[in-house]
Amino acid sequence: MMKKISYIEKPEEWEKDFMFHVPIKVRFSETDMFGHMNNTAPFIYFEEARIEFMKSIGIFDIASSEMESIPVVADLQCDFHQQIYFDDQLTLYVKVNHIGTTSYDLHYMALNRSQQPCLTGRGRIVQINQDTGKPVEIPQEIKGLLVTK
Amino acid sequence: MMKKISYIEKPEEWEKDFMFHVPIKVRFSETDMFGHMNNTAPFIYFEEARIEFMKSIGIFDIASSEMESIPVVADLQCDFHQQIYFDDQLTLYVKVNHIGTTSYDLHYMALNRSQQPCLTGRGRIVQINQDTGKPVEIPQEIKGLLVTK
Amino acid sequence: MMKKISYIEKPEEWEKDFMFHVPIKVRFSETDMFGHMNNTAPFIYFEEARIEFMKSIGIFDIASSEMESIPVVADLQCDFHQQIYFDDQLTLYVKVNHIGTTSYDLHYMALNRSQQPCLTGRGRIVQINQDTGKPVEIPQEIKGLLVTK
Amino acid sequence: MMKKISYIEKPEEWEKDFMFHVPIKVRFSETDMFGHMNNTAPFIYFEEARIEFMKSIGIFDIASSEMESIPVVADLQCDFHQQIYFDDQLTLYVKVNHIGTTSYDLHYMALNRSQQPCLTGRGRIVQINQDTGKPVEIPQEIKGLLVTK
Repeated sequence: MMKKISYIEKPEEWEKDFMFHVPIKVRFSETDMFGHMNNTAPFIYFEEARIEFMKSIGIFDIASSEMESIPVVADLQCDFHQQIYFDDQLTLYVKVNHIGTTSYDLHYMALNRSQQPCLTGRGRIVQINQDTGKPVEIPQEIKGLLVTK
Repeated sequence: MMKKISYIEKPEEWEKDFMFHVPIKVRFSETDMFGHMNNTAPFIYFEEARIEFMKSIGIFDIASSEMESIPVVADLQCDFHQQIYFDDQLTLYVKVNHIGTTSYDLHYMALNRSQQPCLTGRGRIVQINQDTGKPVEIPQEIKGLLVTK
Repeated sequence: MMKKISYIEKPEEWEKDFMFHVPIKVRFSETDMFGHMNNTAPFIYFEEARIEFMKSIGIFDIASSEMESIPVVADLQCDFHQQIYFDDQLTLYVKVNHIGTTSYDLHYMALNRSQQPCLTGRGRIVQINQDTGKPVEIPQEIKGLLVTK
Repeated sequence: MMKKISYIEKPEEWEKDFMFHVPIKVRFSETDMFGHMNNTAPFIYFEEARIEFMKSIGIFDIASSEMESIPVVADLQCDFHQQIYFDDQLTLYVKVNHIGTTSYDLHYMALNRSQQPCLTGRGRIVQINQDTGKPVEIPQEIKGLLVTK
């Protein structure tokens, strides 16, 4: 059983809703002298999963042609549920959790070999104008790709 | 002006309440191909600041003798308020924000050269029994050190 | 054609001699603001390949029971032959190149998608006594595993 | 006494020849489960020292205006002389060791608190044309800055 997490309303539904996932193996250089995964590593994994997810739904194909606005990370958070060790094999899931006008939320869940959630997390992506740095509407094509996932 | 952050009730008071800080310089290897600080870097900085803070209040001196329970990171989060670039010089503040029975919260704020908050964050530290992995009461000596800061 | 490298006598033979390999994908967080893989990343990859290699030949099984001496990295080097970019898929090879009395050399070669060597490298591993820190003879069982590879 | 290193002819003279240095503190996230500094960390430190060195002699001022060719890392190597631990405070020295037509060598030495060399290293920087990727002559102004150091 996971502890109560503010961004997870109904844990069972929340877990079932994930589809996309990438494999992650904890590197030796990602451990620390306490003998387990250093707590900065999940954010490396989240980024890897986020990029693979965006690639998989086709956002990068649009992004390269449509470069007036770009997506940037507005915030990131991670909850540690189980100790993670060197060489652990994780399955890291990503999904779109909410789409607003200028931003959307991605949620993350890592299962360990026993299929237990060992990490959960989320982060908001904001679409900004590259020149002004201000939030702009998510382009309709990108919104379309996000909604269907 | 910072955007609204869930863990910051009154921004002005929250900012004034910080005392302890460490200098951080953004390394070249911490940038990414988008030309600014990679979003995994703040968690490296938070860890550095957290350790220096704990050292400064004397927790490590106690910890080494009193090793039945140890502090572990239960969660971490970071909000990105301003773009951060290579070689930027940040002042990273840490403070204890709340002390419970088995855990406490640390809050973080990074100011850039213009004294603007470019990063804010928080994370909960839980005191656990090394053998059982279960939360235990924060030892009274440690609590004493945390309260006065 | 690779440039001349001091630790590679006959490039063609040297290349053919590799058998063991691991797949490596260049992470976004491993790029830098110059738009390609940061030059600290190969050493992360070398470590990953080295550990997988040692696991594959069974060194870790011995190591855990026979802990009077341990292997440590004495030196590391890497030559950059081709630019490497985000999301590049590399095949990283490792082999034992020389076995001495107290140390052995591991060599590395990374091929890019065009099967061109983009990185080559080497490093010496020394067997040391954990208490004294002095080099000791490589245990016979470990030597046996290394020789046959 | 340092072990024999191929790129150091006369250790005493070699050591005395260093002038420029930066302070380095080993971060917790740079340790690994073996309890000391992970062997990928020196290359992060070398990069930091290299950039500070180049900044100090004024190369970056020229580089920004004169962008037909850029300096890239051709190779890197590091020798580990002493174990290095979390929170160790190192003094990392850098110097130009040799200047050729299209490339130059930088050498590195890290002293620990006891003023013992715990790391030494070197790496070649090649000046390349950004469009062709081929080596080109080091611009005369840059050469001038390097020679006098």
